[in-house]
Amino acid sequence: MTQKGFNVAVVGATGAVGQQMLKTLEERNFPIAKLSLLASSRSAGRSVEYKGEEVVIQEATPDAFEGVDIALFSAGGSISKELAPEAVKRGAVVIDNTSAYRMDENVPLVVPEVNEGDIAKHQGIIANPNCSTIQMVVALKPLQEKYGLNKVIVSTYQAVSGAGAKAIQELRTQSQAILDGEEFTPEILPCAGDKKHYQIAFNAVPQIDKFQDNGYTFEEMKMINETKKIMHMPSLAVAATCVRLPVETGHSESVYVELGEDVSSVHEIKELLSASAGITLQDDPDHQVYPMPAYCVGKNDVFVGRVRKDLDRENGFHMWIVSDNLLKGAAWNSVQIAESLIKLGLLN
Amino acid sequence: MTQKGFNVAVVGATGAVGQQMLKTLEERNFPIAKLSLLASSRSAGRSVEYKGEEVVIQEATPDAFEGVDIALFSAGGSISKELAPEAVKRGAVVIDNTSAYRMDENVPLVVPEVNEGDIAKHQGIIANPNCSTIQMVVALKPLQEKYGLNKVIVSTYQAVSGAGAKAIQELRTQSQAILDGEEFTPEILPCAGDKKHYQIAFNAVPQIDKFQDNGYTFEEMKMINETKKIMHMPSLAVAATCVRLPVETGHSESVYVELGEDVSSVHEIKELLSASAGITLQDDPDHQVYPMPAYCVGKNDVFVGRVRKDLDRENGFHMWIVSDNLLKGAAWNSVQIAESLIKLGLLN
Repeated sequence: MTQKGFNVAVVGATGAVGQQMLKTLEERNFPIAKLSLLASSRSAGRSVEYKGEEVVIQEATPDAFEGVDIALFSAGGSISKELAPEAVKRGAVVIDNTSAYRMDENVPLVVPEVNEGDIAKHQGIIANPNCSTIQMVVALKPLQEKYGLNKVIVSTYQAVSGAGAKAIQELRTQSQAILDGEEFTPEILPCAGDKKHYQIAFNAVPQIDKFQDNGYTFEEMKMINETKKIMHMPSLAVAATCVRLPVETGHSESVYVELGEDVSSVHEIKELLSASAGITLQDDPDHQVYPMPAYCVGKNDVFVGRVRKDLDRENGFHMWIVSDNLLKGAAWNSVQIAESLIKLGLLN
Repeated sequence: MTQKGFNVAVVGATGAVGQQMLKTLEERNFPIAKLSLLASSRSAGRSVEYKGEEVVIQEATPDAFEGVDIALFSAGGSISKELAPEAVKRGAVVIDNTSAYRMDENVPLVVPEVNEGDIAKHQGIIANPNCSTIQMVVALKPLQEKYGLNKVIVSTYQAVSGAGAKAIQELRTQSQAILDGEEFTPEILPCAGDKKHYQIAFNAVPQIDKFQDNGYTFEEMKMINETKKIMHMPSLAVAATCVRLPVETGHSESVYVELGEDVSSVHEIKELLSASAGITLQDDPDHQVYPMPAYCVGKNDVFVGRVRKDLDRENGFHMWIVSDNLLKGAAWNSVQIAESLIKLGLLN
């Protein structure tokens, strides 16, 4: 580290998340001494603007990590598997935004509002959780701390940008074709690597990522397993149904929770959420105030609304959680982890 | 009744549901001696095609129901309140597709696959349930009969056609404006009669109908109360979160159920659903087979898929239920009730 800041590498700088990563570093005025933008050989040589200056993209090779203090990875799981250990070997701390290391017991899986302390246990790699998990645990944490938490059932309403830039383009092109009454062939969604592709425009597709043998998708199992790990609650009952929607950016979640104790007043819960880090409460039914994906884009917070008591269980509550999946769900949470590393004095 | 059939009146023949009602009567070759199409004075004089013949729309007045055997109402709650008693007074049986009489204890609320027997108790009016309720109870009924049912938690993914023809137009116009990068002003959704209107295209809006004082919307309370009434389970625990999506037609529902007894095999549940009236099972994760709204339009059945066991509770199951909200959710269920009336010998 120099007086001026840290040497930061962004791997996958040209992708949907990578672009938000650069924007976030810029907005946060992150203390950068030297910025390296790394990508596949295909993108190497192109340049990208950062704080008004053109930065040329280099090929992501092991040696490109020489002298790097912090490496932010968001170029897909296989790139992380290959290059994150090389970066660590050269002294970098890796913050990985793929699913490659999330369930590795030697890798902390971190949402700073929830388990910032876990960062100290890192052995070179810190994993950034799945987008749909992050926004949910931010809202669950204050409830768990104050009342305890027994059960979570979530149904998601997820945006296509979680599937990358090509999925955004597919939604747009297909929407236009349908409005024009023209033919189209689905090619990307629900899952680029899977066999069948379905219409996403004006549709709702109950598949995100591939299916596991137990009938759940990998996305659903990520939400279930990552939530338990981040919250340090291996026996928390969590169930998830993940659905892709014709929304460009912004994930929404309908969440039912059973708390550890009865809470008589929904007002008390709203006050608690409203005072919690990273949460903006948008909850005023009388004035039709509630969170929506189209209105959360570009904002770092997790928005919570529609908080109400279950009509049958004293300890049951429902809520609606919305956040920008590219920011708190990815880029902002990664940069937050980097800021925590500095704050906790864990970089040297 | 004549040898040739019944005198049938359709009130609200020009609306989104009314149009599907005529199409359904035609497809079912419903035994009609005389068809009266009734609407507001605004639409009177226009004509609509039925089985290749032009039928002139008359104004819906009390006397227009003279000689009518079956009156199918779908012109809004206030019209039903005003004219359904007049139709009954003149000897008609009313099948009402609005919320006007659904919770009236003297009015059976009927989904033929679930409680056809209740039709016999009618005193002139039979109510057709809310669209989102109908498709859910069709899937719940076989489970309840075989295993018992303790708890239901549903999150909906509802199409705009449930809010009428103007909402469909708003979705199309707004989608085009957004694709073109043009300005637009939301005017109809989420709820025509409410104060604020929000973007529906490329968004998800957690409000359907207005809010009640308890923080739930009327749509959510309809699902909760109607489910209990139709299933004759006043103390069933039911919770609902209702969300409007940029989908034209076809409601989807993510449903969690706790059955009355433990069921070891998800296969057994799939077999049961597959063999039940009105249900098409679409559930083969290995081949990415599951129901979706864009592929259910124009079909009468309720489509069920993604059936899987909760990972924490032996008696807990999740499923994904999709149906055409204008057909099983409205027109087809109404015509089915009319067919049941004939089958049960209740018209004379």
